This record gives sequence, structure tokens and C-alpha cells, in this order.
Amino acid sequence: MSMGSLQGYHCDNIDIKKAQIEEAVRVLLQGLDEDINKDGLIKTPHRVAKAFLDGTRGYKQNVDDIVQGALFPEAGLDNNKVGHAGGVGGLVIVRDLDLFSYCESCLLPFHVKCHVGYVPSGHRVVGLSKLSRVAEAFAKRLQHPQRLADEICAGLQQTVDPTGVAVILQCFHIHCSNGFVKKVISAGSGVFGDESDPIWREFFSLLKFRMSIADKNFSDWCPSVANVDTVSIDMVSAVTSIIRSLGEDPSRKELVGTPSRFVKWLMDFKHCDIKTILNESVSKNSDIPTSNKQIYSELNLPFLSQCEHHLLPFHGVVHIGYFGVEEVSPTKKSFLESIVQFYGLKLQVQERFTRQIAETAAPVFGGDIIVVAEASHTCMISRGIEKFGSSTATVAVLGQFSTDAAARALFLESLPRLSSLS
Amino acid sequence: MSMGSLQGYHCDNIDIKKAQIEEAVRVLLQGLDEDINKDGLIKTPHRVAKAFLDGTRGYKQNVDDIVQGALFPEAGLDNNKVGHAGGVGGLVIVRDLDLFSYCESCLLPFHVKCHVGYVPSGHRVVGLSKLSRVAEAFAKRLQHPQRLADEICAGLQQTVDPTGVAVILQCFHIHCSNGFVKKVISAGSGVFGDESDPIWREFFSLLKFRMSIADKNFSDWCPSVANVDTVSIDMVSAVTSIIRSLGEDPSRKELVGTPSRFVKWLMDFKHCDIKTILNESVSKNSDIPTSNKQIYSELNLPFLSQCEHHLLPFHGVVHIGYFGVEEVSPTKKSFLESIVQFYGLKLQVQERFTRQIAETAAPVFGGDIIVVAEASHTCMISRGIEKFGSSTATVAVLGQFSTDAAARALFLESLPRLSSLS
Repeated sequence: MSMGSLQGYHCDNIDIKKAQIEEAVRVLLQGLDEDINKDGLIKTPHRVAKAFLDGTRGYKQNVDDIVQGALFPEAGLDNNKVGHAGGVGGLVIVRDLDLFSYCESCLLPFHVKCHVGYVPSGHRVVGLSKLSRVAEAFAKRLQHPQRLADEICAGLQQTVDPTGVAVILQCFHIHCSNGFVKKVISAGSGVFGDESDPIWREFFSLLKFRMSIADKNFSDWCPSVANVDTVSIDMVSAVTSIIRSLGEDPSRKELVGTPSRFVKWLMDFKHCDIKTILNESVSKNSDIPTSNKQIYSELNLPFLSQCEHHLLPFHGVVHIGYFGVEEVSPTKKSFLESIVQFYGLKLQVQERFTRQIAETAAPVFGGDIIVVAEASHTCMISRGIEKFGSSTATVAVLGQFSTDAAARALFLESLPRLSSLS
Repeated sequence: MSMGSLQGYHCDNIDIKKAQIEEAVRVLLQGLDEDINKDGLIKTPHRVAKAFLDGTRGYKQNVDDIVQGALFPEAGLDNNKVGHAGGVGGLVIVRDLDLFSYCESCLLPFHVKCHVGYVPSGHRVVGLSKLSRVAEAFAKRLQHPQRLADEICAGLQQTVDPTGVAVILQCFHIHCSNGFVKKVISAGSGVFGDESDPIWREFFSLLKFRMSIADKNFSDWCPSVANVDTVSIDMVSAVTSIIRSLGEDPSRKELVGTPSRFVKWLMDFKHCDIKTILNESVSKNSDIPTSNKQIYSELNLPFLSQCEHHLLPFHGVVHIGYFGVEEVSPTKKSFLESIVQFYGLKLQVQERFTRQIAETAAPVFGGDIIVVAEASHTCMISRGIEKFGSSTATVAVLGQFSTDAAARALFLESLPRLSSLS
């Protein structure tokens, strides 16, 4: 296993790598029929290059360097005592390390909750933060969950040389239509080499969640599919060039289909001005006397979109409030779902997405509407800022909702407290 | 308000600053009667200097630089529509940004959950991640919660120039005996300048928690006290030198008592070999026939300790399992509490802490004991790795627990699932 850089494909000039990625991103944006000179997009190649290079910085990190100088002598039990503790046999666990990695199959980031345990030996322990740093060094590469677990485990086993290492990863991969694909993965070495050993049961007891380890079938892990026939050769070449600039070998067998999978994902967000997919045949409600109207709402309409600043997904739910005399008909509800989906499937910013939904839906509700979008932005967590757990809300108000603070308050206070984002 | 560096006190040579802090930390360690050349401590001055400089890097960050280039043109509503949306009036909120700051009163880190809202104007929005970066730039300084809220608010108001900015901070300050002091703070500008304006109610509705804003009385915020009489002048001077090296003015009125407060906090963890504070008079249980014994436990004994690698607090709970014929007597429970507290109050590593408790408590339980310590380490979250929400568990087993896997499993599976750390 290589612990450090992939020397054969490593180009040390960061400026050249950045320029190569930026050029490739411009090809991708043009393939999406976007104007690469418009304000929100002109610096997107720069931002995407920065995010990719930062998100794969692990290729330049060496586990030996991380652990070196953080191995501390630590006594075990007094000689006359029977048992395991401290630097000789006292199980150590670090739980709930949030990591982001890049799926080697499709180049989308995936979230990892990482739990590491080890059994010290030889009267020494490793600094607790190094367990996190080693995990991070392997996460910041193009990865597959099982290899990530195996590499963290082997990396710690080789450098710390303990009685055993255990790694549990909870992995979450975004899915275009179905929330997230979740997998729980394990890897063990030394005394953790045998999954039926009681030490595994002790490790699980000390984790704060209940779960079962996935079988070794990963066929449902990355939901993207390669379909070279339908994607542009130029765009595929551009992504291949990005992979090479990150220091990886695009001909590695797990990466061969990655460029076309990434392009296929992007093409779902291709620029499109035609609204014919929207059902415009729904009736307008503007002729109902205001005095008979109450506030109704449609909550938790799911959406997936793509941030135009970083080419990274954001996803969440939309809540819509309106004045009416009854709940929306199935036809209108389906109309709202179509709008939400339609405005998600393009390069977006959340503020615009919210406004567009409000403007398009308003006529159906007599012009009085309030729209709230709540989202998790991958770009807030997979880049330098790494604000796991943060979320964003944007509001658009039209007609009566813009002048009637009590109506706004009534609707906003009716929104679900518990986040539907996960 | 100064948005950038405190030029008057700023020394640009990072190596000199680092060396000054390292020298000061050596003075502090000697004041704690520690051997500064022992393995776990020899690099502590280096680690502490790195942590302090990283934790106060905000002094070198300028809000203009952060926001510049991330203001994007964004349309409001079509001309013929009444309301607020997008780049003209559409409320934008970013929630649950985890930050760490340093308390200017005592130099301990405090945790902040930050929520920022603003109302765009002039057909433009700011990149969502910049709200986080601006908040971070002010958090990474010696701070007071209200000033932190005010500075984030003013920084965004001045650079983004929106219709208004709102900031809510949930702040958590570690307390030596009582968990955490919690404060909820607000700041508002522009349309958020009036706390009774309905816009505040809308902002609150979109937060995912219920809370009341603290009154402006902060007398109970930082639980540390200055007591110059009882602390070493050399140690106080050393901390004063650290503050100066961080680019701050130690004579600023909020900082005048800080060195003695920090020293007083540290002195609670002074090296001490004498165990006379422990009540050794509790009876030994070794003469009860094994066949009559069952597993009993004492759970959730709280502790506070200080990481010897980073001079930063870690805190949590200890769970103890033993074989016996009955629950522990009040005398023995108090003995266990004393042990847990005693071994916390020194410079520690969690593995040693767990072993020491096990070794000291074992004789009282016939030599058969299992000890689990669960902790949150400030050093895992307030430095570069910033793994919010991560926690650590360490285990020590003596006597029968080391050979009887079923007994270990029985005890470990009885531990509380929900974390008592917070």
C-alpha cells in the first residue's frame, strides 16, 4: 500500500495543476451551455480547482510524518496486577470524527462519520488527535469506503504498531433522487483481525449508535452510472485531465469510468430556459374573495441542485405557504413539485432558486405566496471551512405576505422544527 | 472598530512569537512543578504555541479581503411584482456554524454555535461560505461573546452593505465544577437594529432551537476569578508575554486580570503526588466468596482534567464496574468520586487517568474492576483539526474483568447510550 504521494502522476507545480483544472472546468461549463463570463461563473473554475486540490490534499500527506513525534511513553499496570490499561492493552476509542472524501466512481464528495479504536502495546500511546489526522489524510483522496477503512487501519497499524486497530466508517453518498446511500464499513488488524473476536463487541458497545456492518457488496454504493455514448467526449477528456492534475492515474481500473459518470451527473443540471416541462394548465385562484381565505401550506418538497459557485450539490426541502380556501389539489401539488424539481436541476444559487419558485408559483395562488428553502450545501462542508451540520434558509415573499407580518409569522412558526435535511 | 490587525502590538516574525510563547509555557510548566523534559511535556511548549497562534489567527484576517470577490449580482423580483426575494429583500440565514473562540478573561477556549442572517439589497448577495469565514475571523481572537456578536454583525454590515444583519450566538464556557456556562447573545444592524421589529421573530422562527436571549448582564459568563495575591508573579508575567505575542495589548482593560486568572486555573492542575486527600479508610471487599458476586456499576462520575500535550481542558464522565454483593455504600461512592476528581486535577492523558483510577480503586473491590472514561477533548476541537462532536473512550480492566469477556461485555453494554458529554 502506498502511504504517500503517487509519485508517477504527481506534478509539483501547484500553479500548473490549478491552471489545468481551471481550463477543464471551463470546458465543462461550456458543455452545460453556460456563459463562462457571467458574474457568478467567471471565478467558478478558480473555486472548483481550489476545492478539488484542497479536497485531495491527502495525496501529499504521509502517515509516518503525522504520527512521528506523537508516540508517547505510557505505563501499563503495575507489575503485580493482572489486566490491561494505559500503554499496555487499555482500549482507546475516538468516536464521531466527521470527514469528507471524494467518491472515486463519480467525483462527488461523500460524508464519513469515522470511529477508530486501537489497543496500545509496548508502553506507548499515540496522541489522540493523530487518529483524526491519519483518517483525514486518507479521506482527502479519491476513495472507496472499504479502501478508506482499510487504509486508515493499515496506516495506524504500521506507524503506531499497537496490538490491534479497528475502524468503523458510516458513509453517506448523495443520490440524485433518493436522499443518501448509507453504508457502514469496518476494517480491523491485529487483535481486531478476526471479526468474531469479543474485542469487536466491546468496541461496538462503546460506540454511541447501533448498526450492522454492510456486507461486502458495494454494487449499490455509488448511484451514478457510466454511459459514454450520451456524454460529450470533450467534457470527458476535461474530467480525465482534472483527475490527472490531482495526482491520480485516470487509467487505474476504478477510475476508468469516473469521467463519464461525473459528466453524466453534471448534465442533469444543464442550462435550460424552456419551461415546457412544467404543467401550466393548473387553474389560477385569483378570483376568490380575500375574506374567505386562510393560510395553507405545502411542506418538505425535496430538491437537489448544483451550486454554480463550486459545482457541488446542495439539497434540501422547500416549504410553500399561500392564501386559499382549501388544501391544494393533487394537480397543484404535482405542479409545485415539478417547479421545485425544475429549478433545482440547473447551476444555481439558493437565493435565486427560492425567488424563481415564488415567481412561478405565485399566479396559481392569486399572487400571494411565501417560499422557504432549507438546504445543506456540500460546498460549506467539503472545502476548507468544513462546517458540518450547518444549514441555510432562504425566504421569498410575494403579495400579501410581503406586507402582512402576522401572516408571515404564522407560516414561519408552522414550519417543522426538526430538520428534514440529513 | 478595527477590522484587521492590531498594528501597534503586531510582531510579524512568527518564529520570534512562537519562541516567546514557548519560553512562557516552560515557565508555566515549571510553576506547576512539572519536569519540562519528560516525554509527554518536552514538546508541549511547541504545541501550545502552535495552538495559541492558530486559535488567534483572526487578528491577521481582514473582513474586506474575505468578502471581496464574493459579492454576486442577483436579481430581485420582476418589476411588476410586490414583495421581497433574491438580491432584493429575500432573507438569507446560515445556521449552526460551530466556532471556537478564546475567552479574553481567562484564555480558555469557548464553543460558539453561530447563526447569521441578512437581508440582501442592491441586487446582490454574498457567497454563503463567506458568512462563516467572517464569523470565524472574529472568533479566532481573544473574545467576549457580546463583542464577538457585535463584530461579526458590523463586519458583515460594512462589507456586504445589506438592508440588515442579525447574529445569534449560543456560547458555552467550561466551568471548573459545573459543566458549562451557557449564554445566548444577539446583535443586529440595519432592519435588525430594533429588537422588537417583526423581522427578528421571522429569523427566530427559522432557527432550529428555542431560546431566550440573555440579558446584558455577563457577570456570570467567565467563571474564573483573578486573585493576584495567590499566584506566582513569574507565571503571570509569562502569560502577559503570551498575550503580547498573540498581537494583543495586555493593558487593554478587559485583559488586565487575564494572566492571573489563567494562572489560577492552571494551578488547579498542579503536580501533586500525595494521595492523602483520598479517603483510604474504606473497607476492602476481597474476602467475599466469588460465587456470591454480581456485576455492579457506578456510572457518570463527572471529571475535569487538563491535557498535558496542549494545556487544554478535557472533561467527561467515568463509569466503574465491579463484582460485589451489593451497591456501593455512600462512603465508597464518595471514595470513587474523590479518586476520579483527584486524578483529573493534574496534567494528564486520558489513558493514564483511566489506569490510575482502576489501580487505585481496585483493592476496594477485591482487585476486579473495569473503568471506562468518556471525554470531550478541547484539543480535538479548538485547534487545526476542529472535530466538533468527536469524543474519546478509554478502558482499563483488572483481575477477573481482564480474563472474562462475558463480564466485560455485560458491563460495557449497560453503559448509557446517550452521551453525557455536553
